[in-house]
Amino acid sequence: MSAHAIQVTPSAYSYPLLIGQLLHSALANAAEQEIVYVDGRRHSYAQFARRVHQLAHALTRLGVQPGDTVAVMDWDSHRYLECFFAVPMLGAVLQTVNVRLSDEQIQYTLNHAGARVLLVNSDFVEPVARFALDTVQTRVLLADEAMALPAGYAGEYEALLADCPEQFEFTEFDENTRATTFYTTGTTGLPKGVYFSHRQLVLHTLAVCNALALAPQQGSFHRGDVYMPLTPMFHVHAWGMPYIATMAGVKQVYPGRYIPERILKLVQRERVSFSHCVPTILSMVLNHPSAGETDLRGWKLIIGGSALTTALVKQALERGIDLFTGYGMSETCPILTLAQIDPADSELDGEAQIALRVKTGRSVPLVALRTVDPEMQTLPRDGHSAGEIVVRAPWLTQGYLHNADASEELWHGGWLHTQDIGHVDPRGYLQVTDRLKDVIKTGGEWVSSLELEELIGRHPDVAEVAVIGVPDAKWGERPLAFVVARSGIEPDADSIRSFLRGFADAGRISRYGVPDEVRFVGELPRTSVGKLNKRALREHNR
Amino acid sequence: MSAHAIQVTPSAYSYPLLIGQLLHSALANAAEQEIVYVDGRRHSYAQFARRVHQLAHALTRLGVQPGDTVAVMDWDSHRYLECFFAVPMLGAVLQTVNVRLSDEQIQYTLNHAGARVLLVNSDFVEPVARFALDTVQTRVLLADEAMALPAGYAGEYEALLADCPEQFEFTEFDENTRATTFYTTGTTGLPKGVYFSHRQLVLHTLAVCNALALAPQQGSFHRGDVYMPLTPMFHVHAWGMPYIATMAGVKQVYPGRYIPERILKLVQRERVSFSHCVPTILSMVLNHPSAGETDLRGWKLIIGGSALTTALVKQALERGIDLFTGYGMSETCPILTLAQIDPADSELDGEAQIALRVKTGRSVPLVALRTVDPEMQTLPRDGHSAGEIVVRAPWLTQGYLHNADASEELWHGGWLHTQDIGHVDPRGYLQVTDRLKDVIKTGGEWVSSLELEELIGRHPDVAEVAVIGVPDAKWGERPLAFVVARSGIEPDADSIRSFLRGFADAGRISRYGVPDEVRFVGELPRTSVGKLNKRALREHNR
Repeated sequence: MSAHAIQVTPSAYSYPLLIGQLLHSALANAAEQEIVYVDGRRHSYAQFARRVHQLAHALTRLGVQPGDTVAVMDWDSHRYLECFFAVPMLGAVLQTVNVRLSDEQIQYTLNHAGARVLLVNSDFVEPVARFALDTVQTRVLLADEAMALPAGYAGEYEALLADCPEQFEFTEFDENTRATTFYTTGTTGLPKGVYFSHRQLVLHTLAVCNALALAPQQGSFHRGDVYMPLTPMFHVHAWGMPYIATMAGVKQVYPGRYIPERILKLVQRERVSFSHCVPTILSMVLNHPSAGETDLRGWKLIIGGSALTTALVKQALERGIDLFTGYGMSETCPILTLAQIDPADSELDGEAQIALRVKTGRSVPLVALRTVDPEMQTLPRDGHSAGEIVVRAPWLTQGYLHNADASEELWHGGWLHTQDIGHVDPRGYLQVTDRLKDVIKTGGEWVSSLELEELIGRHPDVAEVAVIGVPDAKWGERPLAFVVARSGIEPDADSIRSFLRGFADAGRISRYGVPDEVRFVGELPRTSVGKLNKRALREHNR
Repeated sequence: MSAHAIQVTPSAYSYPLLIGQLLHSALANAAEQEIVYVDGRRHSYAQFARRVHQLAHALTRLGVQPGDTVAVMDWDSHRYLECFFAVPMLGAVLQTVNVRLSDEQIQYTLNHAGARVLLVNSDFVEPVARFALDTVQTRVLLADEAMALPAGYAGEYEALLADCPEQFEFTEFDENTRATTFYTTGTTGLPKGVYFSHRQLVLHTLAVCNALALAPQQGSFHRGDVYMPLTPMFHVHAWGMPYIATMAGVKQVYPGRYIPERILKLVQRERVSFSHCVPTILSMVLNHPSAGETDLRGWKLIIGGSALTTALVKQALERGIDLFTGYGMSETCPILTLAQIDPADSELDGEAQIALRVKTGRSVPLVALRTVDPEMQTLPRDGHSAGEIVVRAPWLTQGYLHNADASEELWHGGWLHTQDIGHVDPRGYLQVTDRLKDVIKTGGEWVSSLELEELIGRHPDVAEVAVIGVPDAKWGERPLAFVVARSGIEPDADSIRSFLRGFADAGRISRYGVPDEVRFVGELPRTSVGKLNKRALREHNR
């Protein structure tokens, strides 16, 4: 406490920011509001709260203590929402397990996090049985339909809850207590654990809800909405939206495993009006045969995870979907920016509005975001000066679990390094242009390897191209282009370099962007899933 | 830090909740948005930020140190908004002086708070010259028009700012640092000082903004709004709305001293769409001769401070004003509840909607509110069981300045005692019915003196009536009624008591509510402003 801190009366309640505190207004104002599961089960908020209390009893009976990690392997469900609250409210840590990882990776993350209790959807009982788990002492079954309890399981979720009183005496604790953890997989190395405190999750909820709700019309989230996640609850708390939806007291719909036909039915049946997903899911849903019969008008959709194509945006807008972009990552809880249309732009024509919807978005309240050059100097907000995006917000992971080196690298200089490259315009619209690893730092400037590839690819002789940066004593790095020539063409590096110089003269790229060397190869290395393997190219050219 | 607190990487930024952090998204996204003063001066948010930095320089040059108190006596202005940010951002304390108090009271509050610097609007130079100020070392003039600097003043605000650089290096500090202080006057005793930390003001901003913005339509606050306060900035930070409006990046209008004609002109000229005021101001504005020519449609107005009459609500609604109630007090920063219409009620007819608009409202996020009996037991949320309203929220004053006894009384039992009596219905609508001092605790029940007065007043013999509680060994308290009989009527206490028993038999009041004694008097004591003086009645009947 500093010298100028407010004086606190001994009897005064100083209100720690705990996840349980999000329930006060929801239960007072929306006790009869519904939480719907894909199988048709409906609970009111009042019932949900009683179930959270029952779950807290059940977990306590199973030996869960403050500080213990409780891991969940489930599809999106009302049960998961109950875990979002009950586990942290006990002072325990909720581990949301990414069930899309390989068995080996899941096993690694459970052991690394030290999970004590594991809640397992019936779909995963079989793989989990093969895991070598070092710390898990208790397994609980999550099953939509009656089934025999597998060997080694302490009980089935609904049966455990039914056996417990509806009132649990939650105690309070430090708001900096860890509430959640989950793992993020980069392109290299083992999954890394990120973690969030009660305070961080409450502040993410408050600030992001403001950004969403303050929209006058387009992209506006409000008490009349019906929320359904389409980014899984194991993925950065489904973008934190279940906490936001609960605090707001809106109707919620949990779709289980994502199956396009079921999603469409739920949107229709429950009048879902607010969701979020990656472009792939949207595309799957829109292109499903039964999409044509479903009324999707007024469905607000935040898109994140990867870049939106204009074609997909147009397809969605034609169906009456109100779609816009959000930006963030596992390390940032996740939301940092949202691309809602400014009231001043509401009269813009369709094309101009699309251009705004696919931008990466504008900062939500409390987010300090800047783009910096390699020396961490802030770049101008001119809409084109690109640099690494670094951020501060009250909800950023304070490190990686048990990984001090990566943690320091993440927070180098007191700002969280997103490893994304982008620029900001005078009205606050961020545009992410590259991943840092795809950018070449040369002559004190950032050159986008993706842009160089795009331009080189326009040369008539070029079939495929990859550009990487190679260390250079004078310039820091220099671009190096690998080109697969079209069959029957005699490769000519000078022709490609002079083609690129044309773009440099026109100001489209920096003159530093023209590679000194264009190397012709028979084929480019690819990963097992067919993606360009730049890492292999870099490793062979150090 | 508890054992289960998150691990913080040494380089990580842990983000204290400071008032300056509210500016990040506003300046990124709304740099060109306007802040308008009544005299026509317009500043963009970018200019506003530069002026906040200049003011910080100016105050530092005048000797302001962290922990110092800077008091402001001004009408609602862009200057005041600049002080709302610059003073706390320096780690100093902003004292918002209630210029409507008596000279004696103002002098008392300045001395009690220990103000070091005093910013004085030209309208108050004359009274301030007569004050005996113990701690004020420096005076700054706030003047809308050029005038000679009064004796003893260090400078004029605009001149001081113009002389300072546009970039100040603000440092960061503990979020529990005191940011603001001001005084509340009860019916008895000296004004009491309340105080709020940076953390509290940031959390009030975030939570109340959510409550306002989450409304689907009625009462919705959004980025397209134009905000103008009509509750003074010296009164509980103008309900905290200037912080909310700034974070949201909306256009703001500051009307100076409240003069109905000017208010109407500003609403029209600047297209003001969001304000808040007490019923008196609304009534003054609506009944001004030029109100008829002003288009007030779409003006959203939160009403607080005292009860709304249905007649005033109807008058406002007929003019197209979207009016609804807010509830709070100086001790609560202030907002606790807002009476927005639930989406489910949007189809209700006019009368039913009016009934909701004049309720005291529903809890904003994070507010824990309950009504309790005299033993602090929670009463059912049944829409009629009335008890004292006690609250917890992250933004309640943690005491009264230099007044430990009153602080403990305020926080008795770990809940802030509002001293208001009310009931809550199953949908969360609070209805305040009485002030605690107007309630009689008898036979373990609360009996409303206001309701007894209302019922006794219906008796044909009664001209005026006042009811107080008098101590009673057996029942705790008993009601005592003072009645002025209609002229020419022979007073008959039994007739009045049996009239009241009729209401008790019908269940309208408790049978404990029928006074043992009805005392006839020639007149009732009144205060200097003509209000019933119950204190005098109580003092004569202890």
